[in-house]
Amino acid sequence: MKLGEIAAKLGLKLRGDGAIEVAMPAPIEAAGPGMITFAVGAKYAGALRASKAACAIVPAELVNDAPAATLLSTNPAFDFARVLGLFFPAYRPAAGIDATAVIATDARIGESASIGAYCVIGAGVTIGRNAVLHPHVTIYPGVRIGDDFTCHSQVSIREGVAIGNRVTLLNGAVIGADGFGFVEHGGDLIKVPQVGSVTIEDDVEIGANTTVDRATMGATVIHKGVKLDNLIQIGHNCEIGDFSRMAAQSGLAGSVRLGKWCQFGGQSGSADHVRVGDRARVIAQAGVHNDLDDDALVGGAPAIDLRIFRRMVAVEPRLPEIARRLRAIEQRLGIRP
Amino acid sequence: MKLGEIAAKLGLKLRGDGAIEVAMPAPIEAAGPGMITFAVGAKYAGALRASKAACAIVPAELVNDAPAATLLSTNPAFDFARVLGLFFPAYRPAAGIDATAVIATDARIGESASIGAYCVIGAGVTIGRNAVLHPHVTIYPGVRIGDDFTCHSQVSIREGVAIGNRVTLLNGAVIGADGFGFVEHGGDLIKVPQVGSVTIEDDVEIGANTTVDRATMGATVIHKGVKLDNLIQIGHNCEIGDFSRMAAQSGLAGSVRLGKWCQFGGQSGSADHVRVGDRARVIAQAGVHNDLDDDALVGGAPAIDLRIFRRMVAVEPRLPEIARRLRAIEQRLGIRP
Amino acid sequence: MKLGEIAAKLGLKLRGDGAIEVAMPAPIEAAGPGMITFAVGAKYAGALRASKAACAIVPAELVNDAPAATLLSTNPAFDFARVLGLFFPAYRPAAGIDATAVIATDARIGESASIGAYCVIGAGVTIGRNAVLHPHVTIYPGVRIGDDFTCHSQVSIREGVAIGNRVTLLNGAVIGADGFGFVEHGGDLIKVPQVGSVTIEDDVEIGANTTVDRATMGATVIHKGVKLDNLIQIGHNCEIGDFSRMAAQSGLAGSVRLGKWCQFGGQSGSADHVRVGDRARVIAQAGVHNDLDDDALVGGAPAIDLRIFRRMVAVEPRLPEIARRLRAIEQRLGIRP
Repeated sequence: MKLGEIAAKLGLKLRGDGAIEVAMPAPIEAAGPGMITFAVGAKYAGALRASKAACAIVPAELVNDAPAATLLSTNPAFDFARVLGLFFPAYRPAAGIDATAVIATDARIGESASIGAYCVIGAGVTIGRNAVLHPHVTIYPGVRIGDDFTCHSQVSIREGVAIGNRVTLLNGAVIGADGFGFVEHGGDLIKVPQVGSVTIEDDVEIGANTTVDRATMGATVIHKGVKLDNLIQIGHNCEIGDFSRMAAQSGLAGSVRLGKWCQFGGQSGSADHVRVGDRARVIAQAGVHNDLDDDALVGGAPAIDLRIFRRMVAVEPRLPEIARRLRAIEQRLGIRP
Repeated sequence: MKLGEIAAKLGLKLRGDGAIEVAMPAPIEAAGPGMITFAVGAKYAGALRASKAACAIVPAELVNDAPAATLLSTNPAFDFARVLGLFFPAYRPAAGIDATAVIATDARIGESASIGAYCVIGAGVTIGRNAVLHPHVTIYPGVRIGDDFTCHSQVSIREGVAIGNRVTLLNGAVIGADGFGFVEHGGDLIKVPQVGSVTIEDDVEIGANTTVDRATMGATVIHKGVKLDNLIQIGHNCEIGDFSRMAAQSGLAGSVRLGKWCQFGGQSGSADHVRVGDRARVIAQAGVHNDLDDDALVGGAPAIDLRIFRRMVAVEPRLPEIARRLRAIEQRLGIRP
Repeated sequence: MKLGEIAAKLGLKLRGDGAIEVAMPAPIEAAGPGMITFAVGAKYAGALRASKAACAIVPAELVNDAPAATLLSTNPAFDFARVLGLFFPAYRPAAGIDATAVIATDARIGESASIGAYCVIGAGVTIGRNAVLHPHVTIYPGVRIGDDFTCHSQVSIREGVAIGNRVTLLNGAVIGADGFGFVEHGGDLIKVPQVGSVTIEDDVEIGANTTVDRATMGATVIHKGVKLDNLIQIGHNCEIGDFSRMAAQSGLAGSVRLGKWCQFGGQSGSADHVRVGDRARVIAQAGVHNDLDDDALVGGAPAIDLRIFRRMVAVEPRLPEIARRLRAIEQRLGIRP
C-alpha cells in the first residue's frame, strides 16, 4: 500500500514521499525497512530516531525525531489501530445461512447475516442486520439482538437476554446462565429461581469463556462500550457503567455496581453489593470490599489507596527484622513483652 | 395470581384479603403496589413499614411491621424463592429428541426426555427419566446419569463419568477432563494417564464454564447437594462433602478433601492434599495451605483465623509509620540497627 | 496381566515371580493384594513395608523395603505412569470421519483421522496424520496442525493458528481469540485489531476452558512441551518457554515472556511485559510484577523471594501485637508519636 493512500484513508497529514510503498505495520521495536510504525510520546523519541521504518505515525512533539516519513496524528495509537485494520481486514465468513443451522420458524434474522454451521436459534429470537454467527452458537428462545452482531463459536446466550448494536462475543462466552443463589431449608439447599435477565448495551465486547449471570430478579446490566476480557465472572444483578474495562480472570460478586470508565486489573475482584465510582481503577489481584469513590486508585486485598498499598508492601518484607529490632529495644529497656 | 391462591400453594397462613391480585414478586427495595415481597429479620422492619407492596412474606417477629397483607413464614427467603417459581416457571424445552441429535445405538434414555439439537451421546450411555439436554451437549461413552438431569448447552461430559439424580450442569461446564499430572523423564515431561473418573451425587449444581477433573486413579467425588458457581476448578481426586458451596473462580488443587456444608468465597483456593473440616468457611481470595478444623473461619493467603486476619490487615497500612517510629526510638536510644 | 509381562513391556528388572497375576495399579495408600504400586524415596519405606501389594516399582534404595515382588526403576513415577497406560488405554474413538462433520472442500486431513460428529473445519485447514477430533470442535480457516493431534469437544481454534505435532487440547479450550486491546479516542473505546496469531509447538497440552489469545501483531508462542492446566489465561504476545507448566486459573497479561521449565502455581499471575528466567517457580496465588532471574522462587503479591515471603507471613499475624508493644515503649520513653 502506498503511503499517500494510507494518509488519504486516515485523513492524516503526510510529511514525506506519498509514493513510498509500505509493506506492513509493526511496533516500533520490530519495525524495519518498508514498514509503518507509531510512537506516542517523548519516551519513544530515541527508539524513533533509531528506527529504520519507512514511516511513523507521530504526535507533533515527535515529528522531528521520526525517520524518513511521518503521518501527523493527535492520537497515534488510535491511528495505528486503523492502519492495522487497513492491512489486515478481520476474517469474516461469507454472508448466508448455513444449511445445517437450526432456526426456529418464528425467529427473525436481519439482512446480510452470516449464520455458521450448526448454529441453533430458538423460538422468538430477533437478530438485526449484518450479524455474523460463527459455527456452534446456541441462542435460547426469546433473545433480542441488535445490528452488527459478531458472535464466535461455542457461545451460549440464554433465554430472554437483550443485546444492543455492534456487540461482539468471543468464543465460549456464556451470557445469562443462572446466578448463584440458594437458601438453606430443612437441612437442604434450595435453589432460588433466577428469573431475571441480562441486558447488554451497544458496543460491548465480551471475552472468551467469560460468564455473565442473569439477575435473580430484574437484569444484570452491561452498559454501552464496556469491554470484558476472558474468563471473567459477572455475578447476578451487577451493573457495569459505560466504557468500563475489566482484565482477564477478574470477577464481580452479586449486585456490584461499577461507574463509568472504571478499570479492573487481571484476577481482581469485588465483594457483593459494592458501589464503585466513575473512573475508579483497581489493580491486578486486588479485592474490593468497600465502596470506592470516583477516581479511586486501589490495590491489595482488602483494597486500599494504591500509594499506601505500595508503601506498605515495600516495608512488609522487613517485618521479621522489625520484630527483632523491637525485641532488642525491649531487652535494652528491661521490658518483658 | 390471587393472594389466596399463593397462600394455598405455599401452605402459609395469610393475614389479609385473599382476593387481592398480585402482579409479580420483587425484592423489598423495588416492591411497589400490587407486588409481593419478603423480609427475613428485624433489620428490615423499617423498609417493610415503608413498603407499598400488596403483601410481604415475613417471620412472626415482623408480622406487625408489614403492609396490608402478610404470609407468615418460618423461612421467608425459602418461601419467596417458591413464589418466584410460581410466577416464573423455568424455561423448559418440549419433550422429544431432536432429529439432529446423534445418539449411539446402545445408549439408553429414560422417558419424557428432551434432547436438543446437535447433542451427541456416546456408546453405552444411560440417562434416567425426565432429562433435559439443551443443544450442543457432548456426552462421551460410558457415562451414567440419573433422573431429572438438566444440562445446558456446550457442556462436555467425559468418558465414564457417573452422575446422580436431579443434577444441573450450566453452560460450558466440563466434567471429567484429564487431571494435570506429568512426570519429568529424560529431559521431557511425560503425561501420567488420568485413568480415574468423576462421581457426582444427587442434587448437585455446577456452574458455567466450571471444570471438574477426573481422578488419576479412583474418582473425584462431588457429594450430595454441592453447589459450584461459575469458572471453578476442581482438581483430580478432590472430594467435596455434602452441601458445600464454592463461589465463582475459586479452585481446589489435587486431592483436597472438603467436609460438609463448607463455603469457599470467590477467587479463593486450596493447595493440594489439604483436609477441610465440616462447615469451614474460607473468605474470598483466601488461600488455604493447611488443614482446617470443623467450623474454621479463615481469610488471607496463607489463610489464618478471620478475626486475626482482620486485625492484621487493619494495621498493615500503618507499617511505614511503624517502621519510622521504631527508627525514632532507636535513635533516641542510640542504637544503630 | 502377569508380572513378567509387565516387566518385559517396561524393560525393567523383576525381582520375584513373573507368573504372579496383577489385577490393577494403585497408589501406595490404596494398593491391596494383587495390585501393583510404586514408591519414589526413603520417606515411603514404611508404607512400602506395610503394603500388601503384589509388586512395587521402586528405586534401588528401597528394594529391600518392598513387598513380595519389585520392579527396579531409576524413575518409579515415570514407570508407574507407563503401567497406568498398559492397564487403561486412553479412550480413542474409531477412525473415520463422521457424516455430520462439515469440512471445507480444500481442507486437507491426514490418514487415520477420527473426526467426530458436528466438527467444523474451515477453508484451507491442514491437519496431519492420526488426528482425533472429538465432537463439536470448531476450526476456523487457515489453521495448520501437525501429526497426532488430540482435540476434545467444544474446542475453538481461531483463524490462522499454527499447531505442531502431538498436541492435546482439552474440552472448551479457546486458541487464538482476540487479545484485549482498546484505545481511547473521542470519548469512545476503539478496538485495536488483533492481527497476529498463535503458534503452539510440539508436545503441548492445554487444559479445559483455557484461553490463549492471538497476538496484536506477530504471534503468541507456546513452545515445545509446555503444559497448561484448566481455566488459564494467556494474554496476547506472550511467549512461554519449553516445558514450562502453569497450574489452573493462573494467568499471564500481555507480552510476558517465560523461560524454560518454569512453574506457575494455581491462581498465580504475571503483569504485562515481565521477563521470567528459566526454571523460575511462582507459588500459588502469587503476582509477579517484576522480571525474575533464572531459578527464582517467589511468592506473594507483589511476588518476592519465597524464603523472605514465608518469614514475612509468619510475622504478619502478630502485627497488632507489634503495634501495641511499640506504643508501650513510646509511653515508657515519653514519646508522643
